Amino acid sequence: MNDFTSPRTLKTIAESTVRRLSLYLRFLEEYSSRGFTTISSEVLAQSGETTSAQVRKDLSFFGSFGKRGLGYRVDDLISAIRGIMGLEENWSVVIVGAGKIGAALTRHQGFTTRGFTVAGIYDSDPAKVGTAIDTLTVRADSDLERDISKHGQRVIAVICVPASAAQGIVNRVVGVGVRAVLNFATAPISVPDGVTVRHVNMATELEILAYAVTNR
Amino acid sequence: MNDFTSPRTLKTIAESTVRRLSLYLRFLEEYSSRGFTTISSEVLAQSGETTSAQVRKDLSFFGSFGKRGLGYRVDDLISAIRGIMGLEENWSVVIVGAGKIGAALTRHQGFTTRGFTVAGIYDSDPAKVGTAIDTLTVRADSDLERDISKHGQRVIAVICVPASAAQGIVNRVVGVGVRAVLNFATAPISVPDGVTVRHVNMATELEILAYAVTNR
Repeated sequence: MNDFTSPRTLKTIAESTVRRLSLYLRFLEEYSSRGFTTISSEVLAQSGETTSAQVRKDLSFFGSFGKRGLGYRVDDLISAIRGIMGLEENWSVVIVGAGKIGAALTRHQGFTTRGFTVAGIYDSDPAKVGTAIDTLTVRADSDLERDISKHGQRVIAVICVPASAAQGIVNRVVGVGVRAVLNFATAPISVPDGVTVRHVNMATELEILAYAVTNR
Repeated sequence: MNDFTSPRTLKTIAESTVRRLSLYLRFLEEYSSRGFTTISSEVLAQSGETTSAQVRKDLSFFGSFGKRGLGYRVDDLISAIRGIMGLEENWSVVIVGAGKIGAALTRHQGFTTRGFTVAGIYDSDPAKVGTAIDTLTVRADSDLERDISKHGQRVIAVICVPASAAQGIVNRVVGVGVRAVLNFATAPISVPDGVTVRHVNMATELEILAYAVTNR
């Protein structure tokens, strides 16, 4: 969601390409569910707000999937993109902070359908621990390290705590091996080499829009 | 949040710079609230996860704020960045879709403190219209155009409706003059020239992290 982490991530393929692949995948899965078995680069281009030439270029990185005049086989393309992006096996998502954003993310159904399962939500507030959010029960913040250790290598930590607590939580999850962090806290956080952070911040998004409209 | 809109936005300053300015601003406001009146480029660099040289370069676009050995005056810098980014006057944020994400955003306090006020939340579901979310009452989707027209030019529409409804809503808000759209729907949307769209999508963020960890 921002580009601060770019220098140490996505070395092989540009981030913009990875982002388009994600959009292609979403579109392909929906297209497949409607019964389509082949797709042209022109149709796929609409999903990524790009051109058919760009689609062909993006997909050419990963070998030759398309046949001239026939387009791409939808299922082959889904498998290939899922493989490239590391989505063949499920990822465990651990949400830290059971406030408004953490709770909304926990209830968000989009995660599970796409190979990401919310494995747990944690909070340090005793009043929140033990309460139910969707099918999960908020767990004590002190259980974080032990629980994460059980999930293996495929864990993404989602930081939804107040800004002042964010770095401390990140240090803890990185300390038990987490290498992917999605940060919703309005705080810059630092991580060691080998760990990727992405930031989601509504204020920043709105400000970039304000800048664009003001300076057009 | 992604770069599809870049070619038609942010012509003057690179998007990465605008994003850093937003982080600097957040940091400076917090720094000011703690009573500090001057700041060095080294301290400010921490806020944007960048270097002091980059800070000086970013700020040099906008004239000379700093004094060698004294650093930058915090209040001058806040004013300058707010001016550059078009934040001197308030923006009205209109949220369309009162589901989990729309409701969570409406309750999110971060908006108002930063010059963005949630002016209304809308839904097409009669069961939701009239219910309260925080201090707002969900309004009928059919009121959207009339209400937006009252807000003037400084409106950002936040799209939180299901993917199938997203383009239709975008067409409607653009039709009454909205030039900035923040899209939470998992659908690509197209807009005419002169309108800026940014996309926020959790699945995409998680997939980019999955890619980074898998391909490191």
